[in-house]
Amino acid sequence: MLNQQAAALDRLFQALADPSRRVMVERLARGPASVSELARPLAMSLPAVVQHLQVLEASGLVRSEKTGRVRTCRIEPTALKTAEHWIAERRSTWERRLDRLGDYLAEEAGRPRRGSKR
Amino acid sequence: MLNQQAAALDRLFQALADPSRRVMVERLARGPASVSELARPLAMSLPAVVQHLQVLEASGLVRSEKTGRVRTCRIEPTALKTAEHWIAERRSTWERRLDRLGDYLAEEAGRPRRGSKR
Repeated sequence: MLNQQAAALDRLFQALADPSRRVMVERLARGPASVSELARPLAMSLPAVVQHLQVLEASGLVRSEKTGRVRTCRIEPTALKTAEHWIAERRSTWERRLDRLGDYLAEEAGRPRRGSKR
Repeated sequence: MLNQQAAALDRLFQALADPSRRVMVERLARGPASVSELARPLAMSLPAVVQHLQVLEASGLVRSEKTGRVRTCRIEPTALKTAEHWIAERRSTWERRLDRLGDYLAEEAGRPRRGSKR
């Protein structure tokens, strides 16, 4: 189970680690698009776009559906949330630690030092 | 400038796309650690841990400092925020779009249909 979650996060972050794939995710965040619409701003061949699309679909960030001759791609917000959540959790662990450290230091500052003559 | 930002995001997401590196980030979110402390929960050689550490440092997620013979590693929360922010922005673009779609549909539902006899 933990391994499956780890593999899912591997695929998510791996999918986001490419500038062309991020351009595709940005475009799909604004609404569904066909493969050729996704390809338009990218300086690459259609097969290359399709390969990137496959990585995005395998990660769960994007799903696509073929109607007639047009494949329509959509973003999968749950996958975006999973990746965001993992990072946010680590950041909040770090911030809680910083708060505790701050409290401790404030407490120490208010306490007379051992051996001081006050 | 845009290319530099893209390269930074590539490195960030790439760094997070490995389960051992995520274990290291999780550990460092709880406070600074030495390289051998980072290695403890991982089933791998110290040189392998050092390689992962180098990837994390190159991404800006971790920095380390050597004092005497001990290298102490710390998390760099700004880098975590950069990655989180990129995802959050896409998610909110998507949610705004959904809200607008909802408003539009609610408006349409309240409006008598063209050609209806109401």
